[in-house]
Amino acid sequence: MLDATPPPPSKYRPVLSQAQAPLTLQTQVMDEQGEWRTQSLACERPLTIYLNKREILTLMTLGEDPEALVLGYLRNQGWIHALEEVIAIQVDWEVAAAAVVTQPLQVDLDERLSQRTVTTGCGQGTVFGNQMERLQQLQLAPWPLKQSEIYHLLDQLSQRNATYRQAGAVHGCALCQANGEVLAFCEDIGRHNAVDTLAGRLWLDDLPEQDLIFYTTGRLTSEMVIKAAQMQISVLISRSGATQMGLELAQRLGLLMLARAKGKHFLVYSGQERLLLDAKPQRLEVSAKKEHRHD
Amino acid sequence: MLDATPPPPSKYRPVLSQAQAPLTLQTQVMDEQGEWRTQSLACERPLTIYLNKREILTLMTLGEDPEALVLGYLRNQGWIHALEEVIAIQVDWEVAAAAVVTQPLQVDLDERLSQRTVTTGCGQGTVFGNQMERLQQLQLAPWPLKQSEIYHLLDQLSQRNATYRQAGAVHGCALCQANGEVLAFCEDIGRHNAVDTLAGRLWLDDLPEQDLIFYTTGRLTSEMVIKAAQMQISVLISRSGATQMGLELAQRLGLLMLARAKGKHFLVYSGQERLLLDAKPQRLEVSAKKEHRHD
Repeated sequence: MLDATPPPPSKYRPVLSQAQAPLTLQTQVMDEQGEWRTQSLACERPLTIYLNKREILTLMTLGEDPEALVLGYLRNQGWIHALEEVIAIQVDWEVAAAAVVTQPLQVDLDERLSQRTVTTGCGQGTVFGNQMERLQQLQLAPWPLKQSEIYHLLDQLSQRNATYRQAGAVHGCALCQANGEVLAFCEDIGRHNAVDTLAGRLWLDDLPEQDLIFYTTGRLTSEMVIKAAQMQISVLISRSGATQMGLELAQRLGLLMLARAKGKHFLVYSGQERLLLDAKPQRLEVSAKKEHRHD
Repeated sequence: MLDATPPPPSKYRPVLSQAQAPLTLQTQVMDEQGEWRTQSLACERPLTIYLNKREILTLMTLGEDPEALVLGYLRNQGWIHALEEVIAIQVDWEVAAAAVVTQPLQVDLDERLSQRTVTTGCGQGTVFGNQMERLQQLQLAPWPLKQSEIYHLLDQLSQRNATYRQAGAVHGCALCQANGEVLAFCEDIGRHNAVDTLAGRLWLDDLPEQDLIFYTTGRLTSEMVIKAAQMQISVLISRSGATQMGLELAQRLGLLMLARAKGKHFLVYSGQERLLLDAKPQRLEVSAKKEHRHD
């Protein structure tokens, strides 16, 4: 009888490969003086997802945490609804493939594939339509946050972006708690891969789903806000900017959303009433240049 | 008989709407001092493409040049192969739709849609597979470029990114000539929308397809390099960085590829032999911080 009892969700883990791949490589580049120097580059590799032997799509990824990326992608796209549905995720860089085996799925594979999977991306392709319906039902906890907690968190995060500092060309994302603890951090070529990887980690590491803070170095576009909200997160912090639709969604969902968060500076775009300003910095001159970055 | 003769390509123009929409809006944000200020935000809006009444996908876009974006997207995705195939592109922001009417297409709509359209994006979803085959046949002219021409071009471009300077959160792309002339410039939420818009402009404005330079504020990932190469462009300049796969493709295609191009600084990643260093700047100290940006 005991054997027949399913393990509690918090203990279940699917079979996972631990595919390793280099995250950066070095190349020789020439500068404007004609001098050659060694430059690190972020790796970029295709990974084709096969769900129960059916090809879903190919992602281009840094490859830092591919099993979590695949799991989070399938979760955020609505292919799977619980970790227990996943039996195994096997990533093999030799063939650039991720083989995912699941229990019988709630979604009809053939039907979904015939509808074609329109993926999220850097403004191109979107899950906006169907996601919006799900978002209507979301009830996110409007818990308060202190300015001092934000500064502590930014300090904790400042040294985590290893690949970016070495090679640039990647975005970092993190799941954090108000006490400054960074529960998960990942970098990837694209903002969307990074947030999907966190969604996977949320399940794989059985992270607490309460009072989470989502941090990203990338822009808070509508799709980033949607993905964070789907993780029940009601505090979003970006080192970069936000779009008008990202703001509209944040306001509609009651999110506390900060952009341009760097050092002691930030701009609160939404949910200002949830932020306690308990650590106002000494006034400094901020050049417009510093505030605007290509993101 | 004359009526039966098709117009020369350079003269043909499909029927185009000229949909207008605001590119930025202003909102009140609170800074770290608790002071409120007016902040401009880049607009972001969905645009669903209907090709001969069949839904293709929904893009999230700034909306600066939607007809060219739709045309360039369909071109880069291989839906259409010549401007003459397009009868009309009607964008209506009221319903967030772009209706595209074409001559009978070379591609089978039902077949393509049943395969589902896997879109390019910020590292997520990719046209990599089928694009690579087409790339093998590309012969790109390895014409030489002068450092002085690059600096002149960067000067010309420095004032073109209106939305970015006002609101941030967008990427700019340009088609230029070695003489510094900017033939087309556009901004959008995503790097991919911006380059697709240029591909549309290339056809709509009947731009010269020889000796073009592609400039982007975004990263040169594999998909950006592929799209530029598809436009027969053999010189790529980015204000940001590049990925390892972007570099591999550039080397394979014999592209002259510059990254971190800002002010007098740049790094030549590929095709160094094509660059004539005729304007070496006076040596200045460059902090590592300046060289690395979140892109």
